[in-house]
Amino acid sequence: MTDLPAAARITEEGPREGFQIEKGPIATARKIALIDALSRTGLDHIQIVSFVNPKNVPGMADADAVVDGITPRPGVAYTALWLNEKGFARALKHDRLSNTGTIQLSASEKFSKRNQNRDAAQQLAGQHAIVEMYKQAGVAVERGSIMAAFGCNFAGDIPVSHIVALVEQILDVAKEHGVTLRYVTLADTMAWATPLAIKRTVGGLRQRWPDLEFALHLHDTRGMAVANAYAGLEMGVARFDAAVAGLGGCPFAGHSGAAGNICTEDLVFMCNELGIATGIDLDALIECAKLAEDVVGHPLPGSVMKGGTLQKFRA
Amino acid sequence: MTDLPAAARITEEGPREGFQIEKGPIATARKIALIDALSRTGLDHIQIVSFVNPKNVPGMADADAVVDGITPRPGVAYTALWLNEKGFARALKHDRLSNTGTIQLSASEKFSKRNQNRDAAQQLAGQHAIVEMYKQAGVAVERGSIMAAFGCNFAGDIPVSHIVALVEQILDVAKEHGVTLRYVTLADTMAWATPLAIKRTVGGLRQRWPDLEFALHLHDTRGMAVANAYAGLEMGVARFDAAVAGLGGCPFAGHSGAAGNICTEDLVFMCNELGIATGIDLDALIECAKLAEDVVGHPLPGSVMKGGTLQKFRA
Repeated sequence: MTDLPAAARITEEGPREGFQIEKGPIATARKIALIDALSRTGLDHIQIVSFVNPKNVPGMADADAVVDGITPRPGVAYTALWLNEKGFARALKHDRLSNTGTIQLSASEKFSKRNQNRDAAQQLAGQHAIVEMYKQAGVAVERGSIMAAFGCNFAGDIPVSHIVALVEQILDVAKEHGVTLRYVTLADTMAWATPLAIKRTVGGLRQRWPDLEFALHLHDTRGMAVANAYAGLEMGVARFDAAVAGLGGCPFAGHSGAAGNICTEDLVFMCNELGIATGIDLDALIECAKLAEDVVGHPLPGSVMKGGTLQKFRA
Repeated sequence: MTDLPAAARITEEGPREGFQIEKGPIATARKIALIDALSRTGLDHIQIVSFVNPKNVPGMADADAVVDGITPRPGVAYTALWLNEKGFARALKHDRLSNTGTIQLSASEKFSKRNQNRDAAQQLAGQHAIVEMYKQAGVAVERGSIMAAFGCNFAGDIPVSHIVALVEQILDVAKEHGVTLRYVTLADTMAWATPLAIKRTVGGLRQRWPDLEFALHLHDTRGMAVANAYAGLEMGVARFDAAVAGLGGCPFAGHSGAAGNICTEDLVFMCNELGIATGIDLDALIECAKLAEDVVGHPLPGSVMKGGTLQKFRA
């Protein structure tokens, strides 16, 4: 027995994270094959595309065709990412997508100013407008999200008190519009987190909101993602984003800086070893990781897909 | 302030771990260049070669030439590995090596039987003979070591009570021969450990021996090494073996199974971020990691060498 959670929920973001950054081009049919393979592993939430400007993200030019091409599996929620109203409108056209809304703030005003030319007040005002947009479209708003929650390349370290203030703002927006969030994701967007920072931040939030669920979105640029996930598990966090094979960045193909999200099968392996149920077939997921390498055409950083599990040694 | 240790000591094992497994051949001069570069980073202990049968380990055929070729730096202890009396005799010929003895047991009798055709009693008896050999050679016996302390591909999971019994045996051998060990290393030889297993094992040992120092030797075959190191730090462990760039296995060149030791610069990055002093210049170490990739001629798994540190963003 441990104090770790009995079960963890994992949102697979490999297709979206991966195909938007890979130089490609990758055939639509191969993207679909990977998504369909992932849907047979027990994963119940797969983020499969982003609806963004194909001029900026050529790898997502076929997003509509990918959504139309998959074989939807009952029990699996397929979702998309969008960055503005135009992208959201594209997502709404797909009945097979489980569209839900997020109230999202960046922990770094500098980051927000650079990317969207918005200061903190404008960013917050924008979220009110977005929630209204979701409500008018009949789309549930289920999630809060804080980008760069553990540090920012433009603003540096982020104090826990600032994250507490931002969660307060997110909950206020939700309350004002009469929506109830299921959880708030803390995103280590630029890979600044350490296990200690995870514990301090989640601990600070728990002190203020003992019953609010938190999720973690952890990038592995500096090799800390698994350690950060474990720190989250120790704090009772039981919801993670992850990317099969570590898709989403490519340190081995000369992309500098950002690596992908925490590798799904490495996270599932750890959960299995810790007795934390995920509902995911690890062997099937490892086959997906190998397929992902084949689809992108270069090595991906996942470890367990290369090192194997321990089951055969225990048999 | 945290309860983490204020400082950690790192033994660099990259040259020994790496060059014994790389297919090579790697020119002796390049091995020496990497070792000399490592000696200028602030590392104070570098394991540079193993004296083993060149028929079994061709990459170590030039071990004597490597030792003779380095430029010893004051304050750096250069050490070697050996597996038997013959190897030990070779190490003794080198004045520039800091030869110290280890009392070593395998947690897995099956592993010991397979490798040395010795049962547990024979293994223990062998350690008495080895300590006598060290004493007669005037070599200090400073370290205990338990291989496969967290699990074994032949014996499966290892209970904490068994590790406690083995440390007891190691300390008894030391006592019988009048030597005092400085610390005992727990080696995750086959990469079975989880952070929880680290905490349970170190916790179990601390309960029995509150003042004995423990070290960790962590392989990263399943991506758990950084998380395991953090768990060790939380338990007060302040001594680690590590390998620059993750040298020591090569998942990207088709070696299956064993990956290298925890990546030194990833560990140092984490320590820096946690406020744990290592005395190591991380930027210089990252340059060594890039040199290591160049020397072996293929990508190595380290993350921080690719993702970079956070210092430039904080400046």
